[in-house]
Amino acid sequence: MDGPRHTDNPCQGICGDARLVARAARPAGTVVDVRGVRIGGREVIVIAGPCAVENEEQLLATARAVKAAGASILRGGAFKPRTSPYSFRGLGHEGLRLLALARAETGLPVVTEVMDARQLDAVAACADILQVGSRNMQNFTLLDEVGRSRLPVLLKRGMSATLTEYLHAAEYVMAAGNDQVILCERGIRTFETSSRYTLDLNAVPMLQRETHLPVLVDPSHGTGHAWMVQRLACAAVAAGADGLLIEVHIDPARALSDGENSLTPEAFARMVEQVSAVAAAVGRCTP
Amino acid sequence: MDGPRHTDNPCQGICGDARLVARAARPAGTVVDVRGVRIGGREVIVIAGPCAVENEEQLLATARAVKAAGASILRGGAFKPRTSPYSFRGLGHEGLRLLALARAETGLPVVTEVMDARQLDAVAACADILQVGSRNMQNFTLLDEVGRSRLPVLLKRGMSATLTEYLHAAEYVMAAGNDQVILCERGIRTFETSSRYTLDLNAVPMLQRETHLPVLVDPSHGTGHAWMVQRLACAAVAAGADGLLIEVHIDPARALSDGENSLTPEAFARMVEQVSAVAAAVGRCTP
Amino acid sequence: MDGPRHTDNPCQGICGDARLVARAARPAGTVVDVRGVRIGGREVIVIAGPCAVENEEQLLATARAVKAAGASILRGGAFKPRTSPYSFRGLGHEGLRLLALARAETGLPVVTEVMDARQLDAVAACADILQVGSRNMQNFTLLDEVGRSRLPVLLKRGMSATLTEYLHAAEYVMAAGNDQVILCERGIRTFETSSRYTLDLNAVPMLQRETHLPVLVDPSHGTGHAWMVQRLACAAVAAGADGLLIEVHIDPARALSDGENSLTPEAFARMVEQVSAVAAAVGRCTP
Amino acid sequence: MDGPRHTDNPCQGICGDARLVARAARPAGTVVDVRGVRIGGREVIVIAGPCAVENEEQLLATARAVKAAGASILRGGAFKPRTSPYSFRGLGHEGLRLLALARAETGLPVVTEVMDARQLDAVAACADILQVGSRNMQNFTLLDEVGRSRLPVLLKRGMSATLTEYLHAAEYVMAAGNDQVILCERGIRTFETSSRYTLDLNAVPMLQRETHLPVLVDPSHGTGHAWMVQRLACAAVAAGADGLLIEVHIDPARALSDGENSLTPEAFARMVEQVSAVAAAVGRCTP
Repeated sequence: MDGPRHTDNPCQGICGDARLVARAARPAGTVVDVRGVRIGGREVIVIAGPCAVENEEQLLATARAVKAAGASILRGGAFKPRTSPYSFRGLGHEGLRLLALARAETGLPVVTEVMDARQLDAVAACADILQVGSRNMQNFTLLDEVGRSRLPVLLKRGMSATLTEYLHAAEYVMAAGNDQVILCERGIRTFETSSRYTLDLNAVPMLQRETHLPVLVDPSHGTGHAWMVQRLACAAVAAGADGLLIEVHIDPARALSDGENSLTPEAFARMVEQVSAVAAAVGRCTP
Repeated sequence: MDGPRHTDNPCQGICGDARLVARAARPAGTVVDVRGVRIGGREVIVIAGPCAVENEEQLLATARAVKAAGASILRGGAFKPRTSPYSFRGLGHEGLRLLALARAETGLPVVTEVMDARQLDAVAACADILQVGSRNMQNFTLLDEVGRSRLPVLLKRGMSATLTEYLHAAEYVMAAGNDQVILCERGIRTFETSSRYTLDLNAVPMLQRETHLPVLVDPSHGTGHAWMVQRLACAAVAAGADGLLIEVHIDPARALSDGENSLTPEAFARMVEQVSAVAAAVGRCTP
Repeated sequence: MDGPRHTDNPCQGICGDARLVARAARPAGTVVDVRGVRIGGREVIVIAGPCAVENEEQLLATARAVKAAGASILRGGAFKPRTSPYSFRGLGHEGLRLLALARAETGLPVVTEVMDARQLDAVAACADILQVGSRNMQNFTLLDEVGRSRLPVLLKRGMSATLTEYLHAAEYVMAAGNDQVILCERGIRTFETSSRYTLDLNAVPMLQRETHLPVLVDPSHGTGHAWMVQRLACAAVAAGADGLLIEVHIDPARALSDGENSLTPEAFARMVEQVSAVAAAVGRCTP
Repeated sequence: MDGPRHTDNPCQGICGDARLVARAARPAGTVVDVRGVRIGGREVIVIAGPCAVENEEQLLATARAVKAAGASILRGGAFKPRTSPYSFRGLGHEGLRLLALARAETGLPVVTEVMDARQLDAVAACADILQVGSRNMQNFTLLDEVGRSRLPVLLKRGMSATLTEYLHAAEYVMAAGNDQVILCERGIRTFETSSRYTLDLNAVPMLQRETHLPVLVDPSHGTGHAWMVQRLACAAVAAGADGLLIEVHIDPARALSDGENSLTPEAFARMVEQVSAVAAAVGRCTP
């Protein structure tokens, strides 16, 4: 970026009464430190891993590969929200155990989704960041609960949430006492059907201007097509994103969920390389 | 309706793998019996009451008024999902106590929202129907839990849920063992900003054709303007809705939530009268 | 309707600077008189006919059938806007000749679409109402031209036009000197794909409150499914619509366009009958 | 881009029957040559200028400034589509005369909008590229006419057009005989209101994969905020755009239209510099 990033006069009103998340509350911005990985600073970080934890071999092989290619944090779902009750809904507690194993072996911090307050202790024991998924962005009792945790919270934008609603969801977490909130744009629902969602990159500068929280982008869900991910990952970083959330699978054709979105480790490595070049072009860097 | 209602060849695919909710599973249709009030039969029923339970006087006065005007079931929120953490979030357990009181005094069955599995026993002790709100339509752990209840479930459509997603949410409840599911269209999010949402009445015949479940419509949220409610209530019934969900407040200007949506008892009585005339015009009746 | 229809305090702003269409400019409302057919009065009128004029037999047979069933005005496209250049784009001037023939034989006034200023004289010679289609709602040079005509203009809402944009399009016509403008809601584009569009019936009371112009509804395009048309036609009238625009074809399976939307003459006759009952239920009548 | 850009297996269906625009028809891609400026090649080009031509001084000062900063083509509206009939609708033929003057003085090729077939000869006499605006994307008679011109056509995407509809609009132009079509994503309409539109950058790789035509992006309209333009311009180029369309005004606060979108010449120069760095990072270059 040329010059300071968030200096213009603020838009009126997208924060509404959400005063804790508003940039005015912390003008220098929030950097969330996850076991040494700093999210929201000058570095653009990459979180990568499979949509769902499927088994030990799949998870460990993917974790090693994404670490080698430059990912700083491992993602992987143990509890999976699925549109149909008959889809694979995750390994649950066994998935958490495998994430802890991958963390121990690779040293990567782990982010995984928590879907219900009753899972919170078990998830918190294995994860370094608690993810609240898009479909739970306005699950207010869950927001209250993760707000009482001492772990950072990765709060994904609802697929048709306005930015005002999104910031109020983040305010729930902060109002409950947790100021380590990470935002993530992941595609919104529009009339267009050729991609799974429409990635809303206008949201990146708008959120960064209005709030002090780090803003990530998830081009895997935001496009729904593996072949599009690199292009939109570069676009997100050019728009100023503080990091990326990327689905990687060692064998996308056999993935139990979101195989269409998932990069192979090789494609992921190429993506990281080009993302680094774009980050440098806009005055950022990669780890 | 002239002639049989659901006879044409089905559209392909909006049910997907949701076989329990599909009309083929119960061609004659489901009638949910709530202490003698039959939802999904020839009668068009009206559920009415305040957005939020505020105090004993407000609730009892409203309950008596809506009963006198023809409502069959009382609605009222004790646990309120609110966009901002600083808005009135309901009286909680005290609200449940007041609902039980209103039920005892008026004899009206009660529907109220459950936001979290941990509230389920307390809500079930005071309510006759469990409401799952729009923002929780894809709170899958909550769907699993209400699916294990023996109370009927009023599942509101998410504000940007496709009908396919909606039917799969209903399938979660049925797959967990509860076949007393009531659907409710309550407005979807579009680009139009002059009304709060866009009421989607196309959804009524489509859902009735594809599924065997009763379909209600909520024109209070679907319009966001009290002055529009009667017109859209009539439209919903003309489109074939099995019932209505209407917000009524004894003093809308002082309501703690949704005052703009709420009818006075007098306006509600006029609405019920005209709705009855429309129901008769399309071959239905009112209690 | 019970009591006066447009008395509440107006919403602020959907008219913006469009002062000629605003209700305040003509509080009693506009009634457009088309050779004795009054649009915008107490009667709910029905305009019906084929999507496209295909040949003399198809048009005359349909015209006779819709007249017998209660339609007051004949619709039929000679110049057809089509998404693909390779679709049937209408018979053009030959289509106009056939419309004039059908008008002469049945006595029904005719409405047909004008797509370009250069067609205007030819269309005006054969038609009683000029239709501006959804895709041309913001074709401002065309709006200026039909504004200089002495024929009434049926201006369809753009498929993703806000009501404010829509009223400004009507203002173009009035500002050019033509105060005989008829509005028509025909479905908007949303994320839902099971119906062709989402019919926005909230628009009916909102437009009637904010403007003095008559408001029709087109459930044929607004649903895209013939089997849904009767239900939504009834809903539109219950919501207060001043009339309906309905596609009818003597043999929908062989229609050159929009066969999926089109009612048979028999289904149309049943629809008119039920619409009449609904109109009576809300204090309106049919011719 | 690393490696070949358009090699994966094509998505099925977004072209439908639009065979002339489909990539298969010209696998190597189309490069449109505008008096030596090549659009669709390795170079990322920038088109800049005021929303509307206001007067000689404004236009010439802006034209010189954007040329100095690296723009290859001058934009400026003489015929302006405006939502309200009472807004400034452009200087018309006098605006064309000024554009011809600016072209003569700076040597920059000119693109300007044509709103009606009857303006075509006058516009073609002063312009090097004919622009068809968003609101006319499905003005099919206009598409036919520009298809008969020998000038390249810049066809902007409609604000709620699907990509399939957009490609069929381009097909109209090609089917009429003009194969010099340039596409331009300019923001789509969604539920989000904090920016004027939502810029859809998913569209860039999707259009480039499915069609052989060059794809530009307009972040000025796509965001509606001057302070956002640089970020989204960089994002567009990172996503693979072949060029940008940018509104620049020498005094945005006094602009007769779109002042909120418009960059000052200084901000434009900074933008071009950063865009160049991003282009290099993704294997492209700037002139």
